[in-house]
Amino acid sequence: MSSFDFVQGLPPPAIKWTGFPKYNFVGGNNDADQVPVEHLTAASNAVLAREGATLATYGLNSGPLGYRPLREFLVGKLKRDAGIVCTADEILITSGSLQGLDLVNGVLLSPGDTVLIEQECYQGSITRLTRRGINIVGIPLDDEGMRIDAVQNALADLNAKGIKPKYIYTIPTVQNPTGTILSEQRRRDLLKLADEYGVPIFEDDCYADLIWNGKRPPAIYAMSKANNVIHIGSFSKSVAPALRVGYIVAKWDVLSRILSIKTDAGSGALEQMVLAEFCAAHFNDHVPKLTKGLRVKLDALMDALAEQFGTAAEFDDPKGGIFLWVRLPDNVDTLKLYQAALASGIAINPGTEWSVNAAHSKSRLRLCFASPSVHEIREGIAALAEVCRKEFGVPERSANIEKARA
Amino acid sequence: MSSFDFVQGLPPPAIKWTGFPKYNFVGGNNDADQVPVEHLTAASNAVLAREGATLATYGLNSGPLGYRPLREFLVGKLKRDAGIVCTADEILITSGSLQGLDLVNGVLLSPGDTVLIEQECYQGSITRLTRRGINIVGIPLDDEGMRIDAVQNALADLNAKGIKPKYIYTIPTVQNPTGTILSEQRRRDLLKLADEYGVPIFEDDCYADLIWNGKRPPAIYAMSKANNVIHIGSFSKSVAPALRVGYIVAKWDVLSRILSIKTDAGSGALEQMVLAEFCAAHFNDHVPKLTKGLRVKLDALMDALAEQFGTAAEFDDPKGGIFLWVRLPDNVDTLKLYQAALASGIAINPGTEWSVNAAHSKSRLRLCFASPSVHEIREGIAALAEVCRKEFGVPERSANIEKARA
Repeated sequence: MSSFDFVQGLPPPAIKWTGFPKYNFVGGNNDADQVPVEHLTAASNAVLAREGATLATYGLNSGPLGYRPLREFLVGKLKRDAGIVCTADEILITSGSLQGLDLVNGVLLSPGDTVLIEQECYQGSITRLTRRGINIVGIPLDDEGMRIDAVQNALADLNAKGIKPKYIYTIPTVQNPTGTILSEQRRRDLLKLADEYGVPIFEDDCYADLIWNGKRPPAIYAMSKANNVIHIGSFSKSVAPALRVGYIVAKWDVLSRILSIKTDAGSGALEQMVLAEFCAAHFNDHVPKLTKGLRVKLDALMDALAEQFGTAAEFDDPKGGIFLWVRLPDNVDTLKLYQAALASGIAINPGTEWSVNAAHSKSRLRLCFASPSVHEIREGIAALAEVCRKEFGVPERSANIEKARA
Repeated sequence: MSSFDFVQGLPPPAIKWTGFPKYNFVGGNNDADQVPVEHLTAASNAVLAREGATLATYGLNSGPLGYRPLREFLVGKLKRDAGIVCTADEILITSGSLQGLDLVNGVLLSPGDTVLIEQECYQGSITRLTRRGINIVGIPLDDEGMRIDAVQNALADLNAKGIKPKYIYTIPTVQNPTGTILSEQRRRDLLKLADEYGVPIFEDDCYADLIWNGKRPPAIYAMSKANNVIHIGSFSKSVAPALRVGYIVAKWDVLSRILSIKTDAGSGALEQMVLAEFCAAHFNDHVPKLTKGLRVKLDALMDALAEQFGTAAEFDDPKGGIFLWVRLPDNVDTLKLYQAALASGIAINPGTEWSVNAAHSKSRLRLCFASPSVHEIREGIAALAEVCRKEFGVPERSANIEKARA
């Protein structure tokens, strides 16, 4: 018998991975055809020839904040795209924005603390909070993102109870999973509330590059006059998810605390070097091309849903990103649909895993459209409709739908 | 004023990095001249051309355990070098062996738990335990590594108090910082004790590739009959530290628990891909060449110490690795020496940071010789001797030393 005595409260053991499902509508995977392989190869050759020997040193010649040319690129990019004025010493490169989440949580959260987050939210953010024993207050969203009136009410309620939340977490620009963009006015209002109640804002902007019309409001970080925002971002969505390169932007008094608990001896240097070399030359051309391709896939997905589900599937056209948040009729439990679909080789994200409001999300699901081909999207949604009909009688076989399929 | 309310007990804020000291004898940095840049470039070109598009997917096509060809390489390497028989599904690729430490600690340790570790030990392992609120029992070492009689006494003492340690942590093969190798007999004895007391062993083998004569005993993991060992390793020392690629070897019942708390969406894929491609073709030729070069630097360091410090500096010739553990006379406080040396552009590791026994380690220091050139080693040790003489009157300006310097 094994002598390992595991700590209490661990997640269940991992299941052995057996490959991807035939129709894969989950995860932040991207379009394999759009990985800029040739340019990444050229970047790798150039940077290794010039600086390969520096791999002998932890942190290269850049120190613990990460490869300096990548931070310098970000200084320019964040200024241009998000209106953020910062120096390279206010940026910490992380192993994906997930490490960013862990580090920010690590310096700010203790068990029993309270945070505000968008009611529908990235699963990884929710589970991180749950595992730390944090009280989560969910803020409902509408088509302009987080509802500021609800933020105000929540802050007032908590204040009346003597509770000061540790932060307000938001994915304001292409919200996950709803695909909304928080308007500039709401950003101003949110900052005002944050200031009034002395609660910092944790801004997760990892999808902000992928907007159909290429236009985004300034980052909340950029609009803040008080030093009360932490901003994180990622190259996972704009270049390649498997690279695992993200970043944190914060003033040094905050970043120096975050850096002190980043005890990993630096994030992967080769990926930082290759990305910096690639981005300096090609990022600005690459992103619009990628986004255009993603929009084609989104259209295919929305067409397939209309064709296969008819009026049974409701959704708003997202402003960008790689996923669609879909509402099915109330009698559909998407957690059960998820299980039945998986057995048929179709992977979807059930709504309750992407929300802190089970009643609201029970019949909703998230579909990622970046990874499957247009053909797979069409076939997969047809197959999903079959499963859903068999399990829940939805969508009905109406004449209307039959006609559309003919 | 900032509204950030940091949690209690954080480490002090990080200090801004201002570049490397002139003479850098700290950290696990390696020899810049020995980074196999050409082969890494060729590996990058080959693997990107073949599989670059898979970067669009988290975990590539390999799932959460890491890039399968790298795990396959390790299966062969661990068999040949360490006698470990395992499958690719018993290996988890990590972001450096530091993530391995965090993950293993994460599934096994709660505040107040007790562990046994070598009294002189890797600083990163000690601070990780301290931050988790773990009771550390240090086991003294001699020139064959961890003293098994002391392990036996410690286990018996704890048992009498009703305390069962969560693990025995050891760096058995080129111990950090002492450079010893735990003999095969001691490994057998340690396993017997572990079995008797039902305490698992946590084997950290990150330096095991760098042995002067290329010969090492089988890994403790390989010798265990009772599924009670977790083994971790790294490519940081054998290929390049900045790459941040390590691994954990464990049976699936243990690895599945570890994997469940690895919530980083995979370790950096490009580095895994390039390493796998490089290692399959060149690892076996690269390591002996690297080791030969390191031995030249060690000889330079030992010569410089003898020349500059004479009999004031005592040390054993390490069996491999990248550092030398040096004892100075009792009146030298190496923490003070460290501060004075740093002011003169010389970085050393003071003994107390690499030990859980302050009295034993107060006059000791660790010197890493892999990164500085032979010339820098000579100049740096001369400069260190000057600082030490000024601060502590050691080494004395004896005729003997003067002669050697002439």
